[in-house]
Amino acid sequence: MAVSMDDDVPLILTLDDSGSSTSAPLDAMDREELPNENGGSYDVIHDASSPAAGDCCAQQSSARHNWEMNYQEAAIYLQEGENNDKFFTHPKNAKALAAYLFAHNHLFYLMELSTALLLLLLSLCEAPAVPMLRLGIFVHATLELFALIVVVFELSMKMRWLGFQTFIRHKRTMVKTCVLFVQFIEAIVVLVRQTSHVRITRALRCIFLVDCRYCGAVRRNLRQIFQSLPPFIDILLLLLFFMVIFAILGELYLWKVNVFFQYFNTLENSLVNLFVLLTTSNFPDVMMPSYARNPWSCVFFIVYLSIELYFIMNLLLAVVFDTFNDIEKRKFKSLLLHKRTAIQHAYRLLITKQRPSGISFKHFEGLLRFYKPRMCARERYLTFKALNQSNTPLVSLKDFYNFYEVVGLKWKAKRNREHWFDDLPRTAFLIFKGINILVKSRAFQYTMYTVVAVNGVWILVETFMLQGGNFFSRNVPWSYIVFLTIYGVELLLKTTGLGPVEYLSSGWNLFDFSVTLFAFLGLMALAFNMEPFYFIVVLRPLQLLRLFKLKKRYRNVLDTMFELFPRMASLGLTLLIFYYCFAIVGMEFFAGVVYPNCCNTSTVADAYRWVNHTVGNKTVVEEGYYYLNNFDNILNSFGKGSFVCSKDYSLEGVTSQTTHWSRLYFMIFYIVTMVVMTIIVAFILDAFVFRMNYTRKNQDSEEDNGIVLEKEISKEEVIGIIELYKRISAATETAQLQKIVLQMDKYGQMSAVFLGRRSRTKSDLSMKMYEEEIQVWWAVDEVCSRLTSSCAQGLL
Amino acid sequence: MAVSMDDDVPLILTLDDSGSSTSAPLDAMDREELPNENGGSYDVIHDASSPAAGDCCAQQSSARHNWEMNYQEAAIYLQEGENNDKFFTHPKNAKALAAYLFAHNHLFYLMELSTALLLLLLSLCEAPAVPMLRLGIFVHATLELFALIVVVFELSMKMRWLGFQTFIRHKRTMVKTCVLFVQFIEAIVVLVRQTSHVRITRALRCIFLVDCRYCGAVRRNLRQIFQSLPPFIDILLLLLFFMVIFAILGELYLWKVNVFFQYFNTLENSLVNLFVLLTTSNFPDVMMPSYARNPWSCVFFIVYLSIELYFIMNLLLAVVFDTFNDIEKRKFKSLLLHKRTAIQHAYRLLITKQRPSGISFKHFEGLLRFYKPRMCARERYLTFKALNQSNTPLVSLKDFYNFYEVVGLKWKAKRNREHWFDDLPRTAFLIFKGINILVKSRAFQYTMYTVVAVNGVWILVETFMLQGGNFFSRNVPWSYIVFLTIYGVELLLKTTGLGPVEYLSSGWNLFDFSVTLFAFLGLMALAFNMEPFYFIVVLRPLQLLRLFKLKKRYRNVLDTMFELFPRMASLGLTLLIFYYCFAIVGMEFFAGVVYPNCCNTSTVADAYRWVNHTVGNKTVVEEGYYYLNNFDNILNSFGKGSFVCSKDYSLEGVTSQTTHWSRLYFMIFYIVTMVVMTIIVAFILDAFVFRMNYTRKNQDSEEDNGIVLEKEISKEEVIGIIELYKRISAATETAQLQKIVLQMDKYGQMSAVFLGRRSRTKSDLSMKMYEEEIQVWWAVDEVCSRLTSSCAQGLL
Repeated sequence: MAVSMDDDVPLILTLDDSGSSTSAPLDAMDREELPNENGGSYDVIHDASSPAAGDCCAQQSSARHNWEMNYQEAAIYLQEGENNDKFFTHPKNAKALAAYLFAHNHLFYLMELSTALLLLLLSLCEAPAVPMLRLGIFVHATLELFALIVVVFELSMKMRWLGFQTFIRHKRTMVKTCVLFVQFIEAIVVLVRQTSHVRITRALRCIFLVDCRYCGAVRRNLRQIFQSLPPFIDILLLLLFFMVIFAILGELYLWKVNVFFQYFNTLENSLVNLFVLLTTSNFPDVMMPSYARNPWSCVFFIVYLSIELYFIMNLLLAVVFDTFNDIEKRKFKSLLLHKRTAIQHAYRLLITKQRPSGISFKHFEGLLRFYKPRMCARERYLTFKALNQSNTPLVSLKDFYNFYEVVGLKWKAKRNREHWFDDLPRTAFLIFKGINILVKSRAFQYTMYTVVAVNGVWILVETFMLQGGNFFSRNVPWSYIVFLTIYGVELLLKTTGLGPVEYLSSGWNLFDFSVTLFAFLGLMALAFNMEPFYFIVVLRPLQLLRLFKLKKRYRNVLDTMFELFPRMASLGLTLLIFYYCFAIVGMEFFAGVVYPNCCNTSTVADAYRWVNHTVGNKTVVEEGYYYLNNFDNILNSFGKGSFVCSKDYSLEGVTSQTTHWSRLYFMIFYIVTMVVMTIIVAFILDAFVFRMNYTRKNQDSEEDNGIVLEKEISKEEVIGIIELYKRISAATETAQLQKIVLQMDKYGQMSAVFLGRRSRTKSDLSMKMYEEEIQVWWAVDEVCSRLTSSCAQGLL
Repeated sequence: MAVSMDDDVPLILTLDDSGSSTSAPLDAMDREELPNENGGSYDVIHDASSPAAGDCCAQQSSARHNWEMNYQEAAIYLQEGENNDKFFTHPKNAKALAAYLFAHNHLFYLMELSTALLLLLLSLCEAPAVPMLRLGIFVHATLELFALIVVVFELSMKMRWLGFQTFIRHKRTMVKTCVLFVQFIEAIVVLVRQTSHVRITRALRCIFLVDCRYCGAVRRNLRQIFQSLPPFIDILLLLLFFMVIFAILGELYLWKVNVFFQYFNTLENSLVNLFVLLTTSNFPDVMMPSYARNPWSCVFFIVYLSIELYFIMNLLLAVVFDTFNDIEKRKFKSLLLHKRTAIQHAYRLLITKQRPSGISFKHFEGLLRFYKPRMCARERYLTFKALNQSNTPLVSLKDFYNFYEVVGLKWKAKRNREHWFDDLPRTAFLIFKGINILVKSRAFQYTMYTVVAVNGVWILVETFMLQGGNFFSRNVPWSYIVFLTIYGVELLLKTTGLGPVEYLSSGWNLFDFSVTLFAFLGLMALAFNMEPFYFIVVLRPLQLLRLFKLKKRYRNVLDTMFELFPRMASLGLTLLIFYYCFAIVGMEFFAGVVYPNCCNTSTVADAYRWVNHTVGNKTVVEEGYYYLNNFDNILNSFGKGSFVCSKDYSLEGVTSQTTHWSRLYFMIFYIVTMVVMTIIVAFILDAFVFRMNYTRKNQDSEEDNGIVLEKEISKEEVIGIIELYKRISAATETAQLQKIVLQMDKYGQMSAVFLGRRSRTKSDLSMKMYEEEIQVWWAVDEVCSRLTSSCAQGLL
């Protein structure tokens, strides 16, 4: 890295000469072998100022330098393939490479993230601020300017890496630049005027968060949302169309019959009420007055709700679900092809002129040094062996295609002993063996289930009997201690019987462990009367979740739940980002609009009432509470976001205090929430249906513990690699490998077996589900690439 | 039919001797050919008392009689196959056959239906009755007894048809019998005591409706609901589990913090409130008091809602959707196999000993006479020809398997002329041709779309400008007349240009036609000031629906909507049946419980308030309206059903007046509604996803007008069939066919071409979707049946 950071050295980009590569003699010296593409993009020509040395030596050092460059570029290609970064953002020269490396590490990412968060959190302190966090205008404007300058720095690094042309073409970055520009000007204006103006543009601050490296999942979600939009909007139009028809019907016919005096007196009211009816939040209320006068008017509502709520809303879901399904598959396909292309790019950089049929371990090792710097020498070799399906010492392109599947494996020496206590003396062994058998027996398991069930019933009865007594008495209830003791003993038995490593390798055991631990902490809290930790005690009922292990469907459901969790979190974050935008806009428009007793002239006066009057000698507070749903600061505005549309009181309350156009805000908010929610539902549906289909298809292989590969390496191989490492004088690697040789010598083995293991990802499942289709994709891709290359060679 | 209705003739069941059929000489006389199975199940042996006649003649008549029997049984088999009736209910002898025929015609079905409806509607008149419809106890009890006696008669017919053994084994019929027994006793008790007692069993009256022939779709839905129940209940338990955990948390922790004084003071309240929270009807209300005291308590609600509402409820949907998908496919498969078996049964009855390789037209015609009595002779022959794929005069079993697909075709002579006006004189032809070209042009279509759009905007603006003016003025607005004239002209042009038959063959044109007709009727109503028909006027905006024809997705959606309609209706009926049960139960328990100002001591006093007080000199009525949600008669109880759970006011109101156990009623009601609703959603989802997959798979064949078959018949063939009919002296058929010959002679043709057409059903689509799998099913079925037959023959 340090090499190419030196900007004084002139850098020239040379084109590759792969066309002539096959003509090179195959029996050339291994040490002097040249990369197939001369140093890829970052070829360095040493000028006269480079340290004078023997010609041969200079050439050799240059070759090694070239190789290092190639390794690095190949690693970058592979990373791009993994992260689904497009190749047109691939750094094109050494200067770009330096910027790329600077901008692609966790420190930089963290800086990005913290800047974005700082900008978002500033809304807490800017007027109208959360009272506790109010900051002076000078302070928060300076903070903002500082954060924006950091963003400018980030963007300049990006421009350096991408080059001006690509930078301009990269849409997301351009949007970010524009937003940055606007924010900059506004921040300066605030600083100069020393007063905040209406800044709806603050809602755009989200883009800084979305652009963060760590928010890739959010970007993916947003892309998916935008892709689902066209069909969604089509159906939404249908929905609105029926709404308009019913609004006209409601206004013309039903109002004429003088029934809906307040709800349907104008077309606008009619529309708004039908819209709110879609959320069912005003349901019987909107219907009761008309129903009181003419029972048949309920037909209007029933037909409306059947068409809109039960038919078209489901249609929305169906369309989104279908689009989602389709997009998921296409995304999977494009990702797969992208990875394949990345592998091809990397492969071309790693083969030599002398041996164009595959990658030797030396070069593979060089690649991994850049791709996964933390990997130890043993794992590198095992990965190489796992990839290499043929008996030759080279990894062919076909083998190399499995790179991503294999590189994630965690390698461990296969234990010869079955249990952790096999090496212990006879007596201890027998005891532990007994415990092991006991712990693994069905009887033990079902006893524990019974205990959990009894515990559950106990808690229920206890809670029921309590009826308002003080649960948190200073005396710890004896049942608590008894059950905790049983769980503790179980934990102890399992840990000793299975060994801590095996015990904690199962997610369910981990769950048991943490719940028991929490229960113990709760006991401590009770015993030492530490009030703030009381909440731990109430987590006890979670122990009951263990019962769901009993049935396969629940295991499936809970497993899927855990698998879905990261994706759900990212979807939640996406929703929060939308909420943030709406919160800012709401705050700018409606801050200070709603307060206790604000709406006494409107129809929702009750909901906002706050009266403090005296009956007899007691002070009675009549509260409508809805005044709490205000937009007075970002937290309230945000909180409001999460439930604003479930009640039309807020809508009416705010509308009665402002203009009718504020209804638009609530409607748009509801629709956006609906879009995201529908996509969340479609996502959950898709995930579960996929899972269920998968289990149905693979009923035979019931319990799978992820992907496992077994590889054997002999002593000679290890010694061979040590030689190799010695030649490039890599001391740590040599030491690591020598340890293995020592181990083998100790046990008198001629070879050692290693197990590579990783958990199954969604991609693996999809690979298995679409097995046949993938073959077709490959074939098509093959033909396409061949056609393109023939075109390029002027054969067509 | 009259033959076997004669019960005096002794009937003996003979076993078939098909084993020896192949040994019969193949060149036997056509007239004397014997059925392969001697008269199937209903073989008649004429005893000595039969009219004395020549031996030959008697034998011939007996053979013909046997054949008639076979035709009838084959037709019954095919009907059973079509209706998915199990074969164990197949009538086993002539007495059973008579009962079967008696119980299988529309008159009997109508009787069944009307009895069931009468029994259901009686609830309107029984105390607590709808005031207008109240009947004396003597009257309604007598009516009930009468209806029950009719049901007894129906059941006795069914017993006669099924036989006692099968009757006992038929679950649905047994349940019906038990319910009938209970109802009978209760009706007599009411009649004797002259006063109604608590009769929750009236809820069981639904079973009479469900058992009706016409309610087959409802039965199918119920079956599907019950099949979806096991996975549904699993997930429901998960839901309840989390609810209990949160209830305990809410009661223990949050009540302790003294926050939820009213909502979470006991475990029961805690549970009920969380349950209602699931319907989101009490959402911000239940949270606001705690939020007012401690903003962080909203975390409790957010976590609860995320887990329960957004995760587990969707999970419910996913599980039901998956099960539904699976069930649909299995149902389709079993139906297909059932039909196949039915065809095999029928085939075996129709082949002769002499020619066991296929069915001749004579026998096929005999079958159709029973299977579709209304089919004319020409259609019978065309169906035969459409089935017959080989050049032989016999329909083989393989051909016969297509029976159900072919028998539904409507046959029409293929017109040689393209338009209806081709035969008109030159001038008229040119005029009509011009209109035809105009009507079919894109310009015309888009002009009409523009007109519709303008009309839509006009209506909107008009309604908006109205703002409370009297829309139904005596003067008909001129815009109405203008637009109606345009539509009228369009209708006229299209009818003349395309011909009425072609015009009305398209569903969209039919829609246009009826909307225009309604608009015209509305105009009449306005012009002649007929108030009750004003509602027709407001249907005008429906014209706008035409705009949706423009986009393919909408066409798809609306087509699917129409396709779904019958199924949706049956699902709606199923839901209504559930509502009926709950309405009866609710009425028995809660009649008279809720009334104005009933709940002044409870938390929901406002919703039930009805105060009539004077402010100044005006009388102000303050209404809470919720007292209207009562159970005082079946209609209210029913109406309540549809929205009871969307507001917890009703729940609280009723609970405050009765015991806490009444909450259980509301909860069960909500859960049942949820089940049915989830299934409806799953059904809609499934239908749309299926449709979208189908269109994606068949993108090339964009517009399909159903299934079309073309068959040519020559003059000789027709004459041959006439001979055949003459021999069996069927005068009407002969006349029909001779008309065709005359027609051919008139145009000097030697043959005529006929087109068979029917609309595509879901089954056809499924056939196409599962094409490959169906082949596998056939193969497996073939092997299975061969194995069974070899087993039967003792070869294994």
